Amino acid sequence: MEVAEDLPALYRLGIVGAGQIARMTHQSAVKLGITPRLFAERIDDSAAQAAPEAVFIHPDALASFAADCEVVTVEHERIDIGLLQALEENGTLLRPGTKTIRVAFDKMHQRRVLRNRGYQVPAFAEVRGPDDVFDFASAHGFPVVLKTVRAAQPGELGVWVVEDRTEAMRVLAERSHLDLMAEEYQSIVKEIVVLVVRRPGGHARCYPIAEITNRDGEAREIRAPAAIGHRLATEARQLALDLANQFEAVGVLAVELFLTTEGLVVNELAARPHNAGHLTIESCPTSQFENHVRAVLDLPLGPTWPSAPAAVTINVIGTIDGYDPAQHLPEALAVEGAQIHLYGKLPKPGRKLGHVTAVADDMDQARELARRAEAALHGRRPL
Amino acid sequence: MEVAEDLPALYRLGIVGAGQIARMTHQSAVKLGITPRLFAERIDDSAAQAAPEAVFIHPDALASFAADCEVVTVEHERIDIGLLQALEENGTLLRPGTKTIRVAFDKMHQRRVLRNRGYQVPAFAEVRGPDDVFDFASAHGFPVVLKTVRAAQPGELGVWVVEDRTEAMRVLAERSHLDLMAEEYQSIVKEIVVLVVRRPGGHARCYPIAEITNRDGEAREIRAPAAIGHRLATEARQLALDLANQFEAVGVLAVELFLTTEGLVVNELAARPHNAGHLTIESCPTSQFENHVRAVLDLPLGPTWPSAPAAVTINVIGTIDGYDPAQHLPEALAVEGAQIHLYGKLPKPGRKLGHVTAVADDMDQARELARRAEAALHGRRPL
Repeated sequence: MEVAEDLPALYRLGIVGAGQIARMTHQSAVKLGITPRLFAERIDDSAAQAAPEAVFIHPDALASFAADCEVVTVEHERIDIGLLQALEENGTLLRPGTKTIRVAFDKMHQRRVLRNRGYQVPAFAEVRGPDDVFDFASAHGFPVVLKTVRAAQPGELGVWVVEDRTEAMRVLAERSHLDLMAEEYQSIVKEIVVLVVRRPGGHARCYPIAEITNRDGEAREIRAPAAIGHRLATEARQLALDLANQFEAVGVLAVELFLTTEGLVVNELAARPHNAGHLTIESCPTSQFENHVRAVLDLPLGPTWPSAPAAVTINVIGTIDGYDPAQHLPEALAVEGAQIHLYGKLPKPGRKLGHVTAVADDMDQARELARRAEAALHGRRPL
Repeated sequence: MEVAEDLPALYRLGIVGAGQIARMTHQSAVKLGITPRLFAERIDDSAAQAAPEAVFIHPDALASFAADCEVVTVEHERIDIGLLQALEENGTLLRPGTKTIRVAFDKMHQRRVLRNRGYQVPAFAEVRGPDDVFDFASAHGFPVVLKTVRAAQPGELGVWVVEDRTEAMRVLAERSHLDLMAEEYQSIVKEIVVLVVRRPGGHARCYPIAEITNRDGEAREIRAPAAIGHRLATEARQLALDLANQFEAVGVLAVELFLTTEGLVVNELAARPHNAGHLTIESCPTSQFENHVRAVLDLPLGPTWPSAPAAVTINVIGTIDGYDPAQHLPEALAVEGAQIHLYGKLPKPGRKLGHVTAVADDMDQARELARRAEAALHGRRPL
């Protein structure tokens, strides 16, 4: 598409990736008068459908894409970090930078760095073959958690809990094309996520802590604020701010924490807006997406306080029969007060096709609204 | 831009016009997984910058544009109504239809229809030359309000209050290229706007009533809810719902009312999302833009209740020195809690370049925040 000569050249932001995170980030930028350029893979990528300046090219073209941008941010963990490092070496202002991204991309590296800096992480080991798993199990016992070192592809499983040697060997055989690592199984009381947004100079803010519930590995339910005490919340926020500073995060850093019987354990980090923060669109004055844009462009951050007492998001996941939840949009919109977000993606089993959020005066009410809306999109009654 | 074959064909919405109303309507549709097509005039139109499927073509191409859409809605009043009538006759589902649009487009027609149906409107007369104004002034006295029959072009004046014959002749001479009408001058206590959103079947909802203050004809300030009593608010809402039904409005109908010493008088109607409703983005569960999309696609309406006790919007208008308020984005974003909306338009004197909204627990606080943010965008202190 031709670009008018006389458009303001302020804030030339590039986003690598064009999934739903990029789509919602793009929307937030447009509100501020900024039109990000997207580095998309396919014309039907979620964000590319809704944005005018998507570029559909081979990874080799990343450098020329970046050259047109003042600041480049990365939406997902599926790009080769070597490509990003090359950009940085050639002077691209990558935010967050590869120092942060590498910690988020490579879970072995992440574990090592976190442990070396004194954070509590589960015991872990590299897995080159079955013997590594057996050795690890001898030391820490079964069950063992096997997980991919790199972020899983969307719709693919990235974590397996194996109960014995046979199961371990089966997973290793089936996933021989993937780099795996072993981790000690945690007795998880709760899974919480702290979203920090941080500017290059170090100014940072936390969002209300979110709590994640997995339902049958299918529709994840996220609620905020998490039902945890003040002391634990303060500890979690402090931990997340610490990590953001240590890794020089810029933009949103999502810190996934396990609350175990032993206390808080760092599960994973993501250096981008996160699924647990989708509810900030409706429940905070500034969404995680807008604050990510502000932060990577080194603009003042907006408030992150809760503007609603309770918020619940449920992911809308493609089902096995492969129909499109958009077909049930009328029923979902009839759920008074639920917010429906669809990403325009082709329906496939296991694929995140959208999410619904409800805010309310109490959590039960919010959850009920969100469940009704999610069920409606699947043409069924709430679970 | 090439369109992927396999994109869902549900809800093929076309928007004629690509200004900021289309831009914000587009954003709301994208949230729902819908990507509207835009009929834009220029590549740097506000909405065309932020949307992928803009069509930049001659009005003659409107028919082929419409043929690709399931439903077509119109963003502004500057298109020839004959073109729209031709579309309708050829089977395009135009929402609202030309019956509604004609009332909004042609203010003489609007006045006649309203008067014939028994609504209170100011005395008015057609103006073909100075004698018509003089005759009107003889009957109703000076000052006389002269206004354009068709909506004014953006940035152009559409209303003149003339105090005597000389002034009247001057305006007529300078505006001889425009169709003008004369109206009785009103002693206005307040200017309020009721936004109704209505589905084809007649289901309709009102937003909290907004109140408009003009500051030096420059930065308009809109606040909601309006500071009017319950009885008057009920009367205004009933009037607006009545009008929406009578004119078979679909989508947003904005009913501008004068509160005069004689009671409520209909000022103007707009059959589209309205400047007075921009604050619904932050202050209501469903914005006027999302509900416009829902209504024209005949989808269930979302709630229109206020989610904040007080909301204020101030328009950001291009100043005589022609600089871009986007240059002051950092200062504006530093106004904690203000929402900054910029439309990506080239700065020109008098042009609407954006708006700021603040929601708060009371009106004074909201107004102060909005004024600070608007002033910051102009690099000055609040008025």
